[in-house]
Amino acid sequence: MIYLDNAATTKPCGEAVNAMVRVAEEFGNPSSLHGLGLNAEKMITEAKDTLARMLAVDKKGIYFTSGGTEANNLAIFGTVNALRRQGKRIITSQIEHPSVLSAFKKLESEGFEVIYAPVDSEGRVDTQELKKYLDESVIFVSIMHVNNETGVIQPIEEISAMIKECSPKALFHVDCVQSFGKINVNPNRMGADMISASAHKIHGFKGTGLLYTKSNRITPVLYGGQQQNEIRPGTENTGGIAAFAAAAEKCSVDMNKMKEKRNLMKEILLRDIPQIKINGSDEYNSGSVLNVSFIGIKAEILLHSLERHKIYVSTGSACSTHKPQPSHVLTAMGLGQKEISGAVRISFCEYNSDEEVIFAAEKIAQEVAMIRKYM
Amino acid sequence: MIYLDNAATTKPCGEAVNAMVRVAEEFGNPSSLHGLGLNAEKMITEAKDTLARMLAVDKKGIYFTSGGTEANNLAIFGTVNALRRQGKRIITSQIEHPSVLSAFKKLESEGFEVIYAPVDSEGRVDTQELKKYLDESVIFVSIMHVNNETGVIQPIEEISAMIKECSPKALFHVDCVQSFGKINVNPNRMGADMISASAHKIHGFKGTGLLYTKSNRITPVLYGGQQQNEIRPGTENTGGIAAFAAAAEKCSVDMNKMKEKRNLMKEILLRDIPQIKINGSDEYNSGSVLNVSFIGIKAEILLHSLERHKIYVSTGSACSTHKPQPSHVLTAMGLGQKEISGAVRISFCEYNSDEEVIFAAEKIAQEVAMIRKYM
Repeated sequence: MIYLDNAATTKPCGEAVNAMVRVAEEFGNPSSLHGLGLNAEKMITEAKDTLARMLAVDKKGIYFTSGGTEANNLAIFGTVNALRRQGKRIITSQIEHPSVLSAFKKLESEGFEVIYAPVDSEGRVDTQELKKYLDESVIFVSIMHVNNETGVIQPIEEISAMIKECSPKALFHVDCVQSFGKINVNPNRMGADMISASAHKIHGFKGTGLLYTKSNRITPVLYGGQQQNEIRPGTENTGGIAAFAAAAEKCSVDMNKMKEKRNLMKEILLRDIPQIKINGSDEYNSGSVLNVSFIGIKAEILLHSLERHKIYVSTGSACSTHKPQPSHVLTAMGLGQKEISGAVRISFCEYNSDEEVIFAAEKIAQEVAMIRKYM
Repeated sequence: MIYLDNAATTKPCGEAVNAMVRVAEEFGNPSSLHGLGLNAEKMITEAKDTLARMLAVDKKGIYFTSGGTEANNLAIFGTVNALRRQGKRIITSQIEHPSVLSAFKKLESEGFEVIYAPVDSEGRVDTQELKKYLDESVIFVSIMHVNNETGVIQPIEEISAMIKECSPKALFHVDCVQSFGKINVNPNRMGADMISASAHKIHGFKGTGLLYTKSNRITPVLYGGQQQNEIRPGTENTGGIAAFAAAAEKCSVDMNKMKEKRNLMKEILLRDIPQIKINGSDEYNSGSVLNVSFIGIKAEILLHSLERHKIYVSTGSACSTHKPQPSHVLTAMGLGQKEISGAVRISFCEYNSDEEVIFAAEKIAQEVAMIRKYM
């Protein structure tokens, strides 16, 4: 099997599996007063230490959630509800993940003025356009670090500087689900007030994510017991949390490693297949995603023909594949209908070998030629 | 180790661990279009089949959540928001779990009229008192099946019949976190429109729960992708879900098994220790919890002295042990300050042996005598 759909999910690494199995033995409830509870609480503290060290932040700002969706929702609803008396305008981009866009749409339905900033043809947020909307009325901005369909790195530091200058009241959230553990994520250097991350994108388990926030202006989304300062109540998923930290610790944050695979794939495809288009900036790419349009081909047909060779790629975000609509990301980048319907997302992890990439690239070339011949 | 804090959390069983490890190999994203995605989706469907069969309900009504807290929140906020134009009164009881009480308090702050129904001295909801508040303005009622501090079974069927008669518009939620997998839970027979359950209370993993609802009048709490009909978006925790079903399948729902342990413990304690009081109805008890007040003793001291013998019990709900307040459950039952401060929760699982129970009971008697002597 050659798995090239790592932006959708990744295989839990041995360290993550071991952590999960260990927690099944050391299974106390972290809120219990006895020793088993204290051990469980200690595991959470250690996981926070590891993750805080990777982010170069104070661990006090880390809240564990059930995944990226909940972390993004907690950042958005939590902050906007805390600041709702201070302004009415909130800003995001047109290419965010559904867990950000749907939350903004919900807030729009509640009366907030929502700006969906456009992107350029390279898939990067148009900062000049964004700047037009930055004024004193803005209370919250959420822009992703790396786009999940294209791998394009957004101009976070530039946006952060603009926000500080023009909208000093606003808090800035960065969705790092597709960047944490893949490239360096440093909230302070980025100028982010809060960031989200997810375990299963970096060889941890599904069901665990985190929100880091340096601001305490946040309200909960869920209500319950006293866990996590009541900002995120509910018994902590100790196994998922320990596995998240174990996986994160193992992650190489050496961009070049994945970028080499991406470049190798790109070169073979460009060399061997006519009428293709690489989507999104090549200069600003995390190295983890190669988005390619095979003109004249329906991406889904290519996906299934590659599957016969046990090669797994995707047609876009897994979170919206059951929606028969064209990619909102590629649409925002101005791609035409043919480019969008032929777009395949090939996404890498550090465990992909050169041999796998070469084999997959050759099979893609064969299958594309075959499909073009018979369709 | 003798673990008698099973109401706080349980040890994942071998079947649950195996399911989790298997999913680490079959790790696809259930939303992916390719075969790995379909396999993951199939695992979720199979888990739903198992759980729906145990509940004797249609699997279409099952939504997986991050645990009992989120399931309760989704039931409460989801339903009340869906029905908010139809009435202003919502009802719960004084002895609910914090994830229910805190959600009702939040709705109270939004302007809903909240009734917290009292309980009798046996720890059962006072149905005659509750009935006074049941009229056409009621849109939602949430009452737990089994109380987490006392193990007392609530008069769910009687309450359900009263709601149908007096508040026909209202939907009825039953928090079954402490009953599912321990005693028979049949939403239709109970007359519940929706129920919540949690995996880690029945030898699954922390981080997974479920809401079953037969009503489609529910709005989401989290917003994101199209997973779970958009009622609960976010990549499903496939490992936790498969482990939940595996654990549930293995659960004995034979009340008598745990009840025997509880009776054994109760008899030894009553025989060997003067000045104790068993809290909550003995007739209506799930068999999983024995709540005992050791008069004149601080429960926390007994807890820690038992810990030296590797016997683990608790002083109340784990979700509020860090709150130095007297138990809201025992307070609602009318217990005095001395009875409350000396109350210990001993909670069983089907794996506890008679030998463990006898050994623990004898140690409790010894330690109580010792503490009383020196304090």
